Amino acid sequence: MVGADLENLVNESAILAARRNKRTIGMSEFVESIERIMAGPARRSRVLDAEDRRVIAYHEAGHAIVMEGLEHTEGVGKITIVSRGQTLGYVMPLPEEDRNLRSRAEYEDTIAGLLAGRVAEEIMFDEPTTSASNDLERVTKLAKAMVTRFGMSDLIGPMQLNPGESNPFMGMEIGHQRSYSEDVARKIDAEVRRIVISAYERARTLLQERKAQLIAVAETLLEKEVLDRKEFLHILEGNSPAPAVAAANAD
Amino acid sequence: MVGADLENLVNESAILAARRNKRTIGMSEFVESIERIMAGPARRSRVLDAEDRRVIAYHEAGHAIVMEGLEHTEGVGKITIVSRGQTLGYVMPLPEEDRNLRSRAEYEDTIAGLLAGRVAEEIMFDEPTTSASNDLERVTKLAKAMVTRFGMSDLIGPMQLNPGESNPFMGMEIGHQRSYSEDVARKIDAEVRRIVISAYERARTLLQERKAQLIAVAETLLEKEVLDRKEFLHILEGNSPAPAVAAANAD
Amino acid sequence: MVGADLENLVNESAILAARRNKRTIGMSEFVESIERIMAGPARRSRVLDAEDRRVIAYHEAGHAIVMEGLEHTEGVGKITIVSRGQTLGYVMPLPEEDRNLRSRAEYEDTIAGLLAGRVAEEIMFDEPTTSASNDLERVTKLAKAMVTRFGMSDLIGPMQLNPGESNPFMGMEIGHQRSYSEDVARKIDAEVRRIVISAYERARTLLQERKAQLIAVAETLLEKEVLDRKEFLHILEGNSPAPAVAAANAD
Amino acid sequence: MVGADLENLVNESAILAARRNKRTIGMSEFVESIERIMAGPARRSRVLDAEDRRVIAYHEAGHAIVMEGLEHTEGVGKITIVSRGQTLGYVMPLPEEDRNLRSRAEYEDTIAGLLAGRVAEEIMFDEPTTSASNDLERVTKLAKAMVTRFGMSDLIGPMQLNPGESNPFMGMEIGHQRSYSEDVARKIDAEVRRIVISAYERARTLLQERKAQLIAVAETLLEKEVLDRKEFLHILEGNSPAPAVAAANAD
Amino acid sequence: MVGADLENLVNESAILAARRNKRTIGMSEFVESIERIMAGPARRSRVLDAEDRRVIAYHEAGHAIVMEGLEHTEGVGKITIVSRGQTLGYVMPLPEEDRNLRSRAEYEDTIAGLLAGRVAEEIMFDEPTTSASNDLERVTKLAKAMVTRFGMSDLIGPMQLNPGESNPFMGMEIGHQRSYSEDVARKIDAEVRRIVISAYERARTLLQERKAQLIAVAETLLEKEVLDRKEFLHILEGNSPAPAVAAANAD
Amino acid sequence: MVGADLENLVNESAILAARRNKRTIGMSEFVESIERIMAGPARRSRVLDAEDRRVIAYHEAGHAIVMEGLEHTEGVGKITIVSRGQTLGYVMPLPEEDRNLRSRAEYEDTIAGLLAGRVAEEIMFDEPTTSASNDLERVTKLAKAMVTRFGMSDLIGPMQLNPGESNPFMGMEIGHQRSYSEDVARKIDAEVRRIVISAYERARTLLQERKAQLIAVAETLLEKEVLDRKEFLHILEGNSPAPAVAAANAD
Repeated sequence: MVGADLENLVNESAILAARRNKRTIGMSEFVESIERIMAGPARRSRVLDAEDRRVIAYHEAGHAIVMEGLEHTEGVGKITIVSRGQTLGYVMPLPEEDRNLRSRAEYEDTIAGLLAGRVAEEIMFDEPTTSASNDLERVTKLAKAMVTRFGMSDLIGPMQLNPGESNPFMGMEIGHQRSYSEDVARKIDAEVRRIVISAYERARTLLQERKAQLIAVAETLLEKEVLDRKEFLHILEGNSPAPAVAAANAD
Repeated sequence: MVGADLENLVNESAILAARRNKRTIGMSEFVESIERIMAGPARRSRVLDAEDRRVIAYHEAGHAIVMEGLEHTEGVGKITIVSRGQTLGYVMPLPEEDRNLRSRAEYEDTIAGLLAGRVAEEIMFDEPTTSASNDLERVTKLAKAMVTRFGMSDLIGPMQLNPGESNPFMGMEIGHQRSYSEDVARKIDAEVRRIVISAYERARTLLQERKAQLIAVAETLLEKEVLDRKEFLHILEGNSPAPAVAAANAD
Repeated sequence: MVGADLENLVNESAILAARRNKRTIGMSEFVESIERIMAGPARRSRVLDAEDRRVIAYHEAGHAIVMEGLEHTEGVGKITIVSRGQTLGYVMPLPEEDRNLRSRAEYEDTIAGLLAGRVAEEIMFDEPTTSASNDLERVTKLAKAMVTRFGMSDLIGPMQLNPGESNPFMGMEIGHQRSYSEDVARKIDAEVRRIVISAYERARTLLQERKAQLIAVAETLLEKEVLDRKEFLHILEGNSPAPAVAAANAD
Repeated sequence: MVGADLENLVNESAILAARRNKRTIGMSEFVESIERIMAGPARRSRVLDAEDRRVIAYHEAGHAIVMEGLEHTEGVGKITIVSRGQTLGYVMPLPEEDRNLRSRAEYEDTIAGLLAGRVAEEIMFDEPTTSASNDLERVTKLAKAMVTRFGMSDLIGPMQLNPGESNPFMGMEIGHQRSYSEDVARKIDAEVRRIVISAYERARTLLQERKAQLIAVAETLLEKEVLDRKEFLHILEGNSPAPAVAAANAD
Repeated sequence: MVGADLENLVNESAILAARRNKRTIGMSEFVESIERIMAGPARRSRVLDAEDRRVIAYHEAGHAIVMEGLEHTEGVGKITIVSRGQTLGYVMPLPEEDRNLRSRAEYEDTIAGLLAGRVAEEIMFDEPTTSASNDLERVTKLAKAMVTRFGMSDLIGPMQLNPGESNPFMGMEIGHQRSYSEDVARKIDAEVRRIVISAYERARTLLQERKAQLIAVAETLLEKEVLDRKEFLHILEGNSPAPAVAAANAD
Repeated sequence: MVGADLENLVNESAILAARRNKRTIGMSEFVESIERIMAGPARRSRVLDAEDRRVIAYHEAGHAIVMEGLEHTEGVGKITIVSRGQTLGYVMPLPEEDRNLRSRAEYEDTIAGLLAGRVAEEIMFDEPTTSASNDLERVTKLAKAMVTRFGMSDLIGPMQLNPGESNPFMGMEIGHQRSYSEDVARKIDAEVRRIVISAYERARTLLQERKAQLIAVAETLLEKEVLDRKEFLHILEGNSPAPAVAAANAD
């Protein structure tokens, strides 16, 4: 790798970390970025076709509205559909205080926010696309971590279900053996599914109430490509749902 | 490896990527090409026997007609039964805008297009051959990706079912552990099967309606070996199915 | 790694070992510390936000009260919520005689003490957080060791269930095969769960009786950040539960 | 390895490839040959005992008659019971046009031809021997490939069941994970068994009808050790079954 | 490692081998000793606390009385509770003739002798400790070997159930595959459990009859730290159970 | 390793090969011999204790009588109970013609012969010992090979059940994956068990009829340590069972 590649690698990793609301670039971001650069160097600096741009705009608008609308997710700092590397668009959260702990409610809202891109597409276009792939990966990992790492599922209880999973090779998972019975595997799957489906329903309810906002944000994005917080909030205000709905949503 | 081998390697990889509608040669194409060259250097530049040529002609004609006939697949750019390396024939899609997203409908039509080669053989010769091996591999991977990567199966939901699957060794799968229960494995298998069988039926219905086109394209291919888009469309026009059938097929 | 990194590594390892009541730094502490330093060098010397500090204070107070209150756990030497490295707070046990054996009762009380941080959060905030992750890992490993290594489960009996598990690579677990049937796996899971849930209930009962102490210790921690044994015992005395309750708890 | 070993290695590989009707020596033939040479260098140039010779003669005669008698198998070029290396005898097929595709019917007939050696022994001696080991390996691989690679089983459908199976290490199978559920594994096993048993019955029926031919070919082989196509066909003609039977067998 | 480390390694290995009644130090003793030295160099030459010493004394006394009392175990040569390295105490068997074969009865009695340490603790203190960890490991391995290696279980029969288990890496078990069905795994588990529980009951019955001996031996050990055979037998004689009981025990 | 070690290694390997009726030393004999030498160098040239010698004498006499008495096993060339290396005694078969094929009947008789050592001990001493460990390993491998390699089980049929099992690392089994369903695994286990139990019963019946021969051969062995064929046959003649029994046994 020459210098330009390394610069590209760092850039990709930084964007990945940003999408994951991480303040630092971790091992996993580097690894993913290397894979991406290896797999598709020719895709950098591309121009999206019109249909893709439209899907992305609604996808990012969905993320932004749910992230802003739920209690335990971070506020929206910036929304962009300028593609860069593998990233076709993203929502940059507000800088927050440097928090170390996450509650179950935060996990649940984060999962709903991640699913909101897919939900927005379904509401508008009725057809799921591949755009949500990274979101679904994070959703599944978060829901699984709630159940198997953080003891946040009452069915499983205050335990960690793969204590032997972390291995000495810097957190990469190689060849570890499942340490529990098929019965417990089934319970984990059921709990993960319950968490994901429940968050999906919450995102769907919220975005259907706020469909006017969704359309307004997405259409402005298609026009301007980037929205800062001020612009975003301004659009929301101009398209807020009826008070009754907003109140019902607040609890 | 000497220079000629490398050239051959790049050629094989490029054809493989083309068959997969990829614009760039990825790691997987290189790996497959290396295997092929190691396994059978003596097979290059061979002459097909007459029976094989006939099967291939109908096989490629089947691909072409379904790819052209379904709404979400790419148009046909070129059809050839000139064999080269391991590739006995292929359909080159039209250059399309550089799309980044794929919808469920596109996946379903792509799978139907991939199965159409096998379907054409069954309609004409009643007997499946090994010619569809690469198609079936792609079909299964695409259907599995729909279910486990892109959340396109309602039974499984918006999740990724092997979040730990991608590993740091450039996407090659080595020794990773299945991360879900036997119950979920059974659901995945059932969904993958449902998607494949449904696409197969659609390809079969379409090709049976357009059997005249199939025969015309295949017989011309046997004669000319290569058809460009213009020639291909010309044959289709001269052998279009009855309007009633075409209309029924359009929805 | 330069000198400062190594110093940091040793510090991290020492804190990890202390949290685990180990007198020596083992291989596993080194490995974990390396991972932590690799993953997040930027997080050192951070300031906790107010909400996190409050959760941590109650979490550590919960540990301290249950460790002090149960018969077979070590007394509390020091409590701190000064974060350092990945460690946001911890309870330092009293130096004890150099014991080599542990009884089932000690394991059960140790597990209850480890779960007490999570229990305290639930009593005060109703919502679990990620703070208990390391505690849950230790809890699960201890409960599993009781069942599969030390023959402390009557259902399983005086056996070791993975005699082939310890391997020559310094105790790290790589690729070993489960040596028992699915039936036994199910029994192990049931026993581990029974032990953990039972300890959880004991910690919960004890902390609910001593909620006044919990609040007093946590609030003082928030003010002073560090409590030594004398200060800690002084707070307990000033907030002891009604005698009846204390007596009931003593058996 | 010195020169003579290498020569021996190439010879062994060539014979193996010939027995598999391959025109080129592949990686798998080299690997097997290395194993064989390592395992038993002293067995080269041995003399078979009389009983073994007799079993081999009927075994090869069985192969030859079924290969000649079925519609989709290659004609017999040469039959030999001169042992060389690990190979105690073999049937060399007629040189055929360089075919690339194989139909389901060809696979079914090839499997029947491979099983015919075993069948001949059972008809004549009532007792199976180890002589069929390589045949059974190929039979199982071919039947499994029909089901899992070439989509030739209606129960499984047009899919490939281990898309992740081929790995980058030149086709050698190391540590890949089964990618389907136990349910599908059971269906595959049932289909593979159905294909093998059905081919076995066909070979048995055919050889029982042509028992006179079987005896004539085998006894001539015992006398002459090698038969060319002309000699072989001449024996068949002199011992053809009753016309009614031959006609019934033709469909 | 410097010279002192090597000396220590050899010492540890020798003690381990002695505890296992082995006359030579094997690979497994070296590996275990390396692990122990790496894990806890600081623990050498420690002083046991009083409670631990008491548990160890009864534990070793239990071993000694059952080993002496059963027909097929070796006589007691020396008992010590002087801790050294990881070993807190042990019973040194009498030097015996160099036997090569072991009968099922010897295995059963050896297992009972190994379990007797745990049994003694339960009889005296009602609470199991971690002291029996090594004993339980050996017990499980011996019982499993009886069932799967030596054909000593009628339910399984005269077979070896993991013929592929021993591998070329000097007996260390790495990544081998279980070669039998879940049904057989369940039967093995049941047989291993039956053998262990039955030996446990025999050790318990014997020690309960001889509780006076147990107390006398353990209390003398606490006083003298080491007992030779003569001293041990003298204590037994002074505390022998009623003749009726001894007779009942003799069959 | 120095020269003496190498000599020892070759000796051990040669004995191992001899016990397995192999005419050449294979990879597996070398590997086992290396393990044995590593594990127990001190055991060479040892003297057996009297009880072990007696067990071994009856064990080898059992092998010899059944090997001589069954139709498809090799005749006895020499019997010895002079121990050497790990081998405490063995029966050397008659040199036979260099056979390449083995029938099902030969396998069944070979298995019965291998089990006869264990059977003889049970008839005489009622108690199984560890002496049969190597026999049981071979018995299980042979019975498994009959079922899964040579198609000699009607329940499984003419198939090979682990076609991917042999791997490129010289026949050593490392990390291969089971290629069949749990259902088939259960059937294999049942067939292997059926074959072993049936051979065991045949060996038992034969040795009980010829108990006088068994005692005579074993007692002579204890006296002379080595018997050649002539001596062995002479003892058999002097102790042959009643004609009626011998005739019944002949079919």
